Amino acid sequence: MSFDQIFINTLRTLSADMVERAGSGHLGMPLGASPMVYELFKNHIKLDPQNTEWFDRDRFIYSSGHGTPLLYSLYHLFGYDISMEDLKNYRQLGSITPGHPENYLTKGVDATTGPLGQGFAMAVGFAIAETHLGAKYNKDDLKIIDHYTYVVCGDGDLMEGVALETASIAGRIGLNKLIVLYDSNDVCLDGNVINSTSDNIKKKFEAMNWNHIFVKDGENIVDVGKAIEEAKKSDKPSIIEVKNIIGFGTIDAGTNNAHSDPLGNDGIAYLKKQVGWEYEGDFYVPEEIEAFKEEYLKEASNKYEAWLDKKIQFKEKYPEDYEKLFNYKEAIKKLDFSGFIKYTEPKPIRVASEDVLNYVYDELGCLIGGSADLSKSNKVNIRKCGYLSKENQANSNIAFGVREFGMAAITNGISLHGGLIPFAATFLVFSEYMKSAIRHAALQKINPIYIFTHDTLSIGPDGPTHQPIEQLAEFRSVPNVDVIRPADPNEVIYSWKYALSNNKPTILINARQELPVLNETNYEKFVKGAYVIDDSDDYHATIIATGSEVSLALKAKEVLEEKGIRLRIVNMPSWELFEREDRTYQDSVIDRKKPVISIEASSGFGWERYTGKTENVICVNDFGESGNGQDLYEARGFNVKDIVARITEILS
Amino acid sequence: MSFDQIFINTLRTLSADMVERAGSGHLGMPLGASPMVYELFKNHIKLDPQNTEWFDRDRFIYSSGHGTPLLYSLYHLFGYDISMEDLKNYRQLGSITPGHPENYLTKGVDATTGPLGQGFAMAVGFAIAETHLGAKYNKDDLKIIDHYTYVVCGDGDLMEGVALETASIAGRIGLNKLIVLYDSNDVCLDGNVINSTSDNIKKKFEAMNWNHIFVKDGENIVDVGKAIEEAKKSDKPSIIEVKNIIGFGTIDAGTNNAHSDPLGNDGIAYLKKQVGWEYEGDFYVPEEIEAFKEEYLKEASNKYEAWLDKKIQFKEKYPEDYEKLFNYKEAIKKLDFSGFIKYTEPKPIRVASEDVLNYVYDELGCLIGGSADLSKSNKVNIRKCGYLSKENQANSNIAFGVREFGMAAITNGISLHGGLIPFAATFLVFSEYMKSAIRHAALQKINPIYIFTHDTLSIGPDGPTHQPIEQLAEFRSVPNVDVIRPADPNEVIYSWKYALSNNKPTILINARQELPVLNETNYEKFVKGAYVIDDSDDYHATIIATGSEVSLALKAKEVLEEKGIRLRIVNMPSWELFEREDRTYQDSVIDRKKPVISIEASSGFGWERYTGKTENVICVNDFGESGNGQDLYEARGFNVKDIVARITEILS
Repeated sequence: MSFDQIFINTLRTLSADMVERAGSGHLGMPLGASPMVYELFKNHIKLDPQNTEWFDRDRFIYSSGHGTPLLYSLYHLFGYDISMEDLKNYRQLGSITPGHPENYLTKGVDATTGPLGQGFAMAVGFAIAETHLGAKYNKDDLKIIDHYTYVVCGDGDLMEGVALETASIAGRIGLNKLIVLYDSNDVCLDGNVINSTSDNIKKKFEAMNWNHIFVKDGENIVDVGKAIEEAKKSDKPSIIEVKNIIGFGTIDAGTNNAHSDPLGNDGIAYLKKQVGWEYEGDFYVPEEIEAFKEEYLKEASNKYEAWLDKKIQFKEKYPEDYEKLFNYKEAIKKLDFSGFIKYTEPKPIRVASEDVLNYVYDELGCLIGGSADLSKSNKVNIRKCGYLSKENQANSNIAFGVREFGMAAITNGISLHGGLIPFAATFLVFSEYMKSAIRHAALQKINPIYIFTHDTLSIGPDGPTHQPIEQLAEFRSVPNVDVIRPADPNEVIYSWKYALSNNKPTILINARQELPVLNETNYEKFVKGAYVIDDSDDYHATIIATGSEVSLALKAKEVLEEKGIRLRIVNMPSWELFEREDRTYQDSVIDRKKPVISIEASSGFGWERYTGKTENVICVNDFGESGNGQDLYEARGFNVKDIVARITEILS
Repeated sequence: MSFDQIFINTLRTLSADMVERAGSGHLGMPLGASPMVYELFKNHIKLDPQNTEWFDRDRFIYSSGHGTPLLYSLYHLFGYDISMEDLKNYRQLGSITPGHPENYLTKGVDATTGPLGQGFAMAVGFAIAETHLGAKYNKDDLKIIDHYTYVVCGDGDLMEGVALETASIAGRIGLNKLIVLYDSNDVCLDGNVINSTSDNIKKKFEAMNWNHIFVKDGENIVDVGKAIEEAKKSDKPSIIEVKNIIGFGTIDAGTNNAHSDPLGNDGIAYLKKQVGWEYEGDFYVPEEIEAFKEEYLKEASNKYEAWLDKKIQFKEKYPEDYEKLFNYKEAIKKLDFSGFIKYTEPKPIRVASEDVLNYVYDELGCLIGGSADLSKSNKVNIRKCGYLSKENQANSNIAFGVREFGMAAITNGISLHGGLIPFAATFLVFSEYMKSAIRHAALQKINPIYIFTHDTLSIGPDGPTHQPIEQLAEFRSVPNVDVIRPADPNEVIYSWKYALSNNKPTILINARQELPVLNETNYEKFVKGAYVIDDSDDYHATIIATGSEVSLALKAKEVLEEKGIRLRIVNMPSWELFEREDRTYQDSVIDRKKPVISIEASSGFGWERYTGKTENVICVNDFGESGNGQDLYEARGFNVKDIVARITEILS
């Protein structure tokens, strides 16, 4: 048996042993896809298993995230920091070999995958980052960034809209260094793919300006290798459709029964016989593979060292570019916005945000992003350049088209790639299309910036499909995400400053309309998440407001003061930031012994955390309607008169 | 000028006048798409403007929801119940002519549209409903259901993943009575479509088994008419790509500047001159059109009457089918589940749900739905039949493939069509892909049923991408949706009973695992949303629990009782149902004067509504991890010992 075949069989038997020991897992994909993935790693991909953070490594996005037995076996055999013990701990609490790959747990995992379609879509983001950085920083004599992005995906991925949205974008931009290995096995969890899908994948991807290459037998790694080489030469993104057999070598091969679950002792014996496995015992790795690993690592290390030399040259010859590419995080920390104005006049929040965005871009250059076809409304245009395209890859505005989910997945990919801080914008209500990708950013501990405008029903005539109600609650409930709703133009500056150096996703909720400049704001107060913005001695109650409702609360305070009701007004730009403060600070802002009332023109869901009582939450819990925005806002109780009446009622 | 041209120009000038008077609105699409929509209404579509609930009317889904000036003008001129006054009230509070079409406000609007892609996707649901009901109920001598589903959509719709997902499904099922009029004008809000998209739409749709017809000049309504007739003959769904000019007749025609906003007086004068409009004044309708309307309505009414005759015949000849098709809502009300078992032994909640689903199907037959490729895990298989397909259109299981969003939009379309109650299933965490469509169901006041299984991190080894945390909070915050989390197998029966006759969407949160049968449950208590399930005299505190945590709370109560801590345990299957009860009932269940503690293995976001204090919320606020499910559940504090300790601490 050839070395290649022994290696492939080792991947298969290790995978089977892992699932067996774990008592669960998805074995069908690993058994079928082992040859193609092996071929990629052995002969094509550029990486160094011992230096998994190498900036110019090829990226490997395992969109078939359920097929981790193969991924971890592969990484183990190619010398990554995954031991035999780790393989045996597959799917156990605290292991570095979880059920789906987690970028923050396991070295060499470029992206967390599992929610189908998103691996593919993030890979488009990786490829955009590479292309864009290459266009910006490579020199004729020195290509500092020059790598491929490889994806392994399955039938399920290609059914998901998010993959299809981003495939169109990839085709438009001509991401020719994006190479997808499509594990085409005609089977999904519920049975045969044909039950739900009769698409002609070749024609469909060609229609999106992709290069489609067909490999009729995935067991033939020579053909797989040729296909990869052919893909590398293409001027389009490539999808290599490799016909594999799910559950190869098992009794259920080729059917959905082979998708998941351990084989049992008899099943493993059957598999080993079918693939011609000659060794005893489980978790066995033949000696020749160990020997191969040493060689592989040496070569890989040489490649990495060569790039490090290049990096030194780059630093010497192009020190400015070097700083921008490799030290932008330090530059962000140093950026103090002293070159930027402090607002003194009212300004639409979204417009202030566009000003800040452009200031940051001009200073640092590390921003890239855009809107899902609402850039003029969202105010996210980088003024210095046009749209990133096949023809102009150094441009930093991305025309995502009307593809919110794809946009969010792409920004995740860009963020994971590194070298850039991506942003994504739409109306707050359409953030819903992106929810899963935003959660996915939070889970991966990356820091894209979301800019959601048109933040209350005051947007008016477009009606309830366009008026956010529950979205603030929705995002505040997501772990590891910071939601920020600035109350005045200067808080927009602070919110950007905070978001840029955040270590998690930041959602900026930017009002469409003009808001007055508030006194008493500064960055130090702002980053505490909530602070007193107007106070009275012996106040009767605390009013917490956010965004556009802060100035409303301040006006109500004046009226109530005349009636003898004294208030403390708290501006709360961010729940999450406030909750990271210590109890002493929190209590100094909100005294729970007195009544607490909240004002926010959104769902009241969750506000009892601060008010203690549902009655004290001034909010909008129903869908909006079409009509003049200011009228609607006021009709739902967001005017001084009604607010005064509500507060009076609550306190009586 | 021909009558046709005068009519088309009337649509255009009315649209311009509406946007002018409203001060905002999207005029570009109406000006370009008027001819094709006119041709459809004049010569092809089957409907009766005076009987908009006609069950066998052709459906008209206006996916380009922003283009309402054209829609309302069209409806006005064709004799729908939209007056000239209504046109003048366009986009005003309280009008029946809101910015985007709202199915619950305006007669003749078959679906609320605006969030792009979802109109197209819902139309696939309409066409599935028609095809399926036809296959089930039509007789050789009597076709009781036999209509087309027409869609108007634009470039933006076809960029959205949800449209692409459902296009694949439509092609697979061969929905040949689905006809899409694609307003292909090469322009979107941000500029030219080519900035974000270079797809070959013909090739792309043909790859998905669609029939693509090209009309090179949308002004040529003869060609549009021929294309519609050709589409009607196809054995595939058809997309008619009509080249239109956005903002036709304006100075900005053919550019994104023509997309929105009023033209101003000069702009309107320019438009009127360009299209050869000879009349004075605004909101003018030439006399010949009024005369035409009368004729049109007479003919339409005749068609409707003919169908009513058919319906009477159907009732006489096929009384049983008649009942099933037209009176299923009454049958649901009568269904008392007396023929169904009452559970006495522990049972996995998801399995109990599949039993109930099949009982209902067998009794009523009006259910249709499926899972996004997780039917075996979600337990939603209708045992009596296979998958709905081109070959077997009467089957009631839908193989949605891995297309969660598309699935939800399709169920919305089916629900809007009527004649069926649709259901859609996936893991709770992947409900995120569907969020916008679920909101859209709530807004449209329809009642699809969602079945979300694997409802806590106890699902284990698949890890955090598969473990829901914040999803319960997310859906509880959506207006007009009922979220139900059954605590035992019998509550599964109640939840289905409730969901079937609900007038809004119902989300069933079904645990994967076995739960014991609780004493003291019955339907009357259940529908109050929360009730005392175990009580102690002079109890010290109230514990509220849901789903799998109810039995955990009961066990903790026993232990604490021995320590002298007496508890009341409240089972709360649904917040929404509980909140619809009066204050007296609510207070009789939860006495706020004593401490209240909640236990739910999900995000605690929102629970302070009942507990008053964050400290009293026992929950999981962080992402999960891969590992044995029971171990993980217990490690995060969901075991008797930790619960006992937490309660003791809170009460001390």
